[in-house]
Amino acid sequence: MKAVENKKKNKKKKMAIAVMSGDLDKLFGAFIIATSAAASNMDVTMFFTFWGLRAIKKNGRTGKSLMGKMMGVLEGGDINKANPSKYSMGGLGRWMFKRMMKAKKVATLPELRQMALDLGVKLYGCQMSMDVMEIPKESLIDETLECVGGAFFVDKALEADVQFFI
Amino acid sequence: MKAVENKKKNKKKKMAIAVMSGDLDKLFGAFIIATSAAASNMDVTMFFTFWGLRAIKKNGRTGKSLMGKMMGVLEGGDINKANPSKYSMGGLGRWMFKRMMKAKKVATLPELRQMALDLGVKLYGCQMSMDVMEIPKESLIDETLECVGGAFFVDKALEADVQFFI
Amino acid sequence: MKAVENKKKNKKKKMAIAVMSGDLDKLFGAFIIATSAAASNMDVTMFFTFWGLRAIKKNGRTGKSLMGKMMGVLEGGDINKANPSKYSMGGLGRWMFKRMMKAKKVATLPELRQMALDLGVKLYGCQMSMDVMEIPKESLIDETLECVGGAFFVDKALEADVQFFI
Repeated sequence: MKAVENKKKNKKKKMAIAVMSGDLDKLFGAFIIATSAAASNMDVTMFFTFWGLRAIKKNGRTGKSLMGKMMGVLEGGDINKANPSKYSMGGLGRWMFKRMMKAKKVATLPELRQMALDLGVKLYGCQMSMDVMEIPKESLIDETLECVGGAFFVDKALEADVQFFI
Repeated sequence: MKAVENKKKNKKKKMAIAVMSGDLDKLFGAFIIATSAAASNMDVTMFFTFWGLRAIKKNGRTGKSLMGKMMGVLEGGDINKANPSKYSMGGLGRWMFKRMMKAKKVATLPELRQMALDLGVKLYGCQMSMDVMEIPKESLIDETLECVGGAFFVDKALEADVQFFI
Repeated sequence: MKAVENKKKNKKKKMAIAVMSGDLDKLFGAFIIATSAAASNMDVTMFFTFWGLRAIKKNGRTGKSLMGKMMGVLEGGDINKANPSKYSMGGLGRWMFKRMMKAKKVATLPELRQMALDLGVKLYGCQMSMDVMEIPKESLIDETLECVGGAFFVDKALEADVQFFI
């Protein structure tokens, strides 16, 4: 029985996405791809690193050292604070983009992330960039499965049918 | 007979590229990869989303709402208006890059796109980002096959041997 | 005997990475992925193009024509001169990032590159972007295997199990 179950499980197609960008548009693309894949019954792993950590951060300041605190101020805030990769213009671009998306009834980033979680997409944080940027595990959303290293992502990428670096 | 034909067709290697960037250098990379793959007899699908839509836009203003029009002004123009991801410097970087490329007799972006089309590369627009940015289908080049959603790209990525997010 | 050897060799999993970015964080990600994969006994190919060439450049000015020299000034320097993709702030961001990485005892970019070489990762330069940016082969580090075209990378990507565009 178990063997059959395993075989069935193994047949599920897999996707692995490394998300290094924390830009509104890039995160949007990443979650659209992840939710589309999960909705097609794929097993999806997302690995958030560096600026991408914003996607799984709670709202709040981070950092212990002076520089960690500076980084916490500059990169503070959660997924709602993501700026577009172009025309960030001190938050104006973000406001504009969100309005345009709302006008077209497009899902917001927090909605997309929730959809991803509901569809079983697995979210991981990159331990090394969390160390460097002084972001403790507690400041990530509770749904984050684990904080792992690059080798973990490479393993996931190797067993996946589709891989992206965003 | 048909079965044999199908089998032969299925053996063709496939590539799927999502192009979210509209930068001169990134588009250059995307089309170089696409044309190289198509020239090696691969079946290549390119999916243009957000800023990447520039690569398949006609020259001309777009947008209906105030913000759509603003976006049309900021992101107006076709593939020739793509700026390098660094040193855009109000168009100076673009001018400089184009001159340097011409001096080395490197193909221009419009030439590379035409080459891609001639080699059978399939170009698709992302319907959702067209909605958000208020870019109607008519403002895309006639060679654009269809405007589709993220799920379409995920399907193509899954059946492809090589996938990129650029 | 040879057939067995070949078979064994063929079983080695492969990864192909195109590196177009020359940003500190992106290069960091690229080398972390490459070294993790190589440490797991994968056969890894890295193809450096455009800004990514910084990763395999020696320190020193390049360029022959006026514009080539300008580019050599703007993009001069080796892997140590890579700026983060955000907060470059005239070198301040680079200084800050390096300090934060050092504080956490994270390997530096030159160390990661050396580790990659020691693990057998193969580094290639993109001939076309070297031509455009007037970067001669002599200005690349001696460990660079060859300067090749896009078709070479596409071949490597096609035979690879995992591919990334960074």
